[in-house]
Amino acid sequence: MTPRDPWRRYRRLLCVCDEIGLRLDPSRMDVPEDYLDRHRDVIGPVLDAMEALEAGAVANPDEGRQVGHYWLRAPELAPELSVSLEIEETREAVLEFAGRVHSGDVAPADAARFTDVLVIGIGGSALGPQLVADALGDPETDRLRPHFFDNTDPDGMDRLLRRLGDRLASTLAVVISKSGGTPETRNGMLVAKAAFEARGLDFAGQAVAITGVDSTLDRFAVEQGFLARFPMWDWVGGRTSVMSAVGLLPAALQGLDVDALLLGARECDSATRERKPEANPALQLALLWHHGTGGRGEKDMVILPYKDRLLLFSRYLQQLVMESLGKNRDLAGQPVSQGIAVYGNKGSTDQHAYVQQLREGVDNFFATFIAVERDGGGDAGALEVESGVTAGDYLRGFRLGTREALAEGGRQSITLSIDRLDAHRLGVLIALYERAVGFYASLVNVNAYHQPGVEAGKRAAAAALDLQARVVDAVRKNAGTAEQIAAAAGSDDIETVFHLLEGLAANSRLERRPGDDLFEATYSALSS
Amino acid sequence: MTPRDPWRRYRRLLCVCDEIGLRLDPSRMDVPEDYLDRHRDVIGPVLDAMEALEAGAVANPDEGRQVGHYWLRAPELAPELSVSLEIEETREAVLEFAGRVHSGDVAPADAARFTDVLVIGIGGSALGPQLVADALGDPETDRLRPHFFDNTDPDGMDRLLRRLGDRLASTLAVVISKSGGTPETRNGMLVAKAAFEARGLDFAGQAVAITGVDSTLDRFAVEQGFLARFPMWDWVGGRTSVMSAVGLLPAALQGLDVDALLLGARECDSATRERKPEANPALQLALLWHHGTGGRGEKDMVILPYKDRLLLFSRYLQQLVMESLGKNRDLAGQPVSQGIAVYGNKGSTDQHAYVQQLREGVDNFFATFIAVERDGGGDAGALEVESGVTAGDYLRGFRLGTREALAEGGRQSITLSIDRLDAHRLGVLIALYERAVGFYASLVNVNAYHQPGVEAGKRAAAAALDLQARVVDAVRKNAGTAEQIAAAAGSDDIETVFHLLEGLAANSRLERRPGDDLFEATYSALSS
Repeated sequence: MTPRDPWRRYRRLLCVCDEIGLRLDPSRMDVPEDYLDRHRDVIGPVLDAMEALEAGAVANPDEGRQVGHYWLRAPELAPELSVSLEIEETREAVLEFAGRVHSGDVAPADAARFTDVLVIGIGGSALGPQLVADALGDPETDRLRPHFFDNTDPDGMDRLLRRLGDRLASTLAVVISKSGGTPETRNGMLVAKAAFEARGLDFAGQAVAITGVDSTLDRFAVEQGFLARFPMWDWVGGRTSVMSAVGLLPAALQGLDVDALLLGARECDSATRERKPEANPALQLALLWHHGTGGRGEKDMVILPYKDRLLLFSRYLQQLVMESLGKNRDLAGQPVSQGIAVYGNKGSTDQHAYVQQLREGVDNFFATFIAVERDGGGDAGALEVESGVTAGDYLRGFRLGTREALAEGGRQSITLSIDRLDAHRLGVLIALYERAVGFYASLVNVNAYHQPGVEAGKRAAAAALDLQARVVDAVRKNAGTAEQIAAAAGSDDIETVFHLLEGLAANSRLERRPGDDLFEATYSALSS
Repeated sequence: MTPRDPWRRYRRLLCVCDEIGLRLDPSRMDVPEDYLDRHRDVIGPVLDAMEALEAGAVANPDEGRQVGHYWLRAPELAPELSVSLEIEETREAVLEFAGRVHSGDVAPADAARFTDVLVIGIGGSALGPQLVADALGDPETDRLRPHFFDNTDPDGMDRLLRRLGDRLASTLAVVISKSGGTPETRNGMLVAKAAFEARGLDFAGQAVAITGVDSTLDRFAVEQGFLARFPMWDWVGGRTSVMSAVGLLPAALQGLDVDALLLGARECDSATRERKPEANPALQLALLWHHGTGGRGEKDMVILPYKDRLLLFSRYLQQLVMESLGKNRDLAGQPVSQGIAVYGNKGSTDQHAYVQQLREGVDNFFATFIAVERDGGGDAGALEVESGVTAGDYLRGFRLGTREALAEGGRQSITLSIDRLDAHRLGVLIALYERAVGFYASLVNVNAYHQPGVEAGKRAAAAALDLQARVVDAVRKNAGTAEQIAAAAGSDDIETVFHLLEGLAANSRLERRPGDDLFEATYSALSS
């Protein structure tokens, strides 16, 4: 390349969507300059599939479901009026409820106002709210402070409860489970409920539920008298639920601008319905991923936002991309091996962590730099750390420098720029990736909207818990070694029995007497 | 496999180090059962290289440095008495200083005691302290609350300063930079200093430095009259510095048991000096990685700790593994393409994020499950979420279930168990991976202790900042387009000039008038 070349290539390839504050720079991917032309034939069907999906086609065939997350920010697009109305009513109910919480009209029994919100959810019911809370929150303007139970680790929950301390009396619990039966979330809710009750607080009087109508959780909420319930619909998948009540309610409670979030997503949707690929950044992203990974996940997607507030974006994209694309069957039922691994934290921090490998090590990735042009920051943004140079100039310099260093080493990168980071632009980013993932799934012909592989782990976990009950029963009847207990419990799976016994012993739930070797230890019921 | 097979294989392969609370289960990697025997010939030299390193060989040849992080927890092993004494003295100085902070003997001017600690560092000077703080901290027992500036994002720093608010008056700043010249850290310190001064606080009176003797930062600390200075040594790399003052001081200030952390690492070091591979879990890890990745980074390392407190462990390992192993030259200077990509967050949360892809998608990884046998947790740990079943049982069930589901799908996994998570065991985990990385580097014959690729990005960043100064000068003299300004600034690199101009314009540092197209915009100095 002559010195002028990168500039010419950049001008030729840059995709400018200034109306939504977005620019996409593919110039450091090793695509030919006419790569969009070369893909004309595949682009039409991909756009058509998305159009059909938005119009209400059953795009999730094996679950027989429509896929409607795009309607959440454009209710008028929903194929049925009742759905449009439900979306609009839910958004209004969310805003109204949040307003009543802020005004103190809805308040806990033992405090004037709610001060904190504890979101209880996992996966799609946590990552979106966590991303929004961290990207847009601010300690000075947040109306409620957000916290999350996003796992079934009792130690993690206890630590968070200790952090809340006396503020539990003014904490609003938001329990989120689409199916209403997610065990981690159910456990989190029960732990929270017990903690409230241990302090003499009425859990139901400080709780709301977001769940499918008539789910287990929904019925529990009615029976207990929760403050409010908000619906989840089966046409919204967990990983694309952030614009439903799942994301909107926590954000509205925190005092964030949910209408701007919706508007940003809506405008990005409009921009990425564009049929001319030159002007469609979501389509370009999908094609670049396809090029970068050979359409077979050959390379990892490294996400490097140069913005502290976007630290969780890569975690959010891990779910969105990997759960959507990581499939072993295509839409025709043929075996495939699909997916793209996603990781990253933030720049320039990660330059001091693993950019060594990106630059010089195994070339198994393509990077996406995410730039936010407006530095933000008050005093820190204005401070000159050297004459005429700010901390933000360094952030930009490191990003440009690392992009250049990767390119010198023959490593590929995309740069995605937004002009500023606010609720609107976060909506743009989320919608951009949602649509890019949908396009990519069409390109490689997989169903982006189911997750059959997750069931296997759930079934195996349920089997382990079922086996635990039998193991505990068996131990109660007779002490024995793992092999003996397994036999008594009627299980062939001695290894799992051993793990369960060791786990129970470690938590003083049964007694363990050492044997000649580790595997000959004897387990017995606690002498009570 | 017959039902008995997994149990037999597990018994055969399990590596038990109960004296340090650790077990390593390689049974779900597809190694032959005699894989250790098959590697006898390579094991000897690998152990010898580590022995030489610990004895003070120059193991980082191109930087001409010894590699001494193992001495930090066994000062008597340092090859020179002066080094042993320095390690011991520093540890004592750290503990003594923390004690004086806790007692209020060292206190800020405007408050009785320090309440918060703001660690300012990046990369190795942040990830270790962050991991330790999050893994071991507790809101009820922490003596000081930890916070981090780990980037040069002014907006991120301003947000944290707003979170500290009035507590800035009782915040102790710990500035960490081995070289003393890391720009992100220098910028963070200057932002903090300005924030202190804006509140009429004396920054130096609330600051300590951890840095190389006589570095820029060291001299600044002396000149400004910092409360204290602690040394960093050139024989400790950033990514293995957590047992030096870098990790010990923040931990001690937080009130954590740094002696237990050191002891855990020391005992793990002893255990992993074992020459019999059957009894050496670090050696086994290195061999398993080699097997899993073909010795060429062919697969990613997915880290899944089933413990909220270990959420940051994968980020810590990203740096340790990728910066150590991601190299393009072997020790003989021959071109190679090395490294292992590392990612992961925590289980069971990640099961709801990307385990779909692990189970059914592209098979480009091996997983490491990290189990903590003792659930911990107070009330939440004891609560039965169903009759006889705790939230911790679910956590274990999900881990076992996912391990099983991955194995059914032909995916490989290692399980690493520790009996409990405390400072001692965290020391064990850190030391285990440090040594495994060292062994692996020997196996593939690369220098684990330098990071030459990081320099390229730094140089390119410095060039961008230098160019920015010339661009600003040029704009001040004459308005123009990016091409014109580049020419005036004497640069061929029009693309970078354009990025700099757009960034400066976005932050109102110069004026931008639209042109016929984006690339013909005109930039001029602000009319003042």
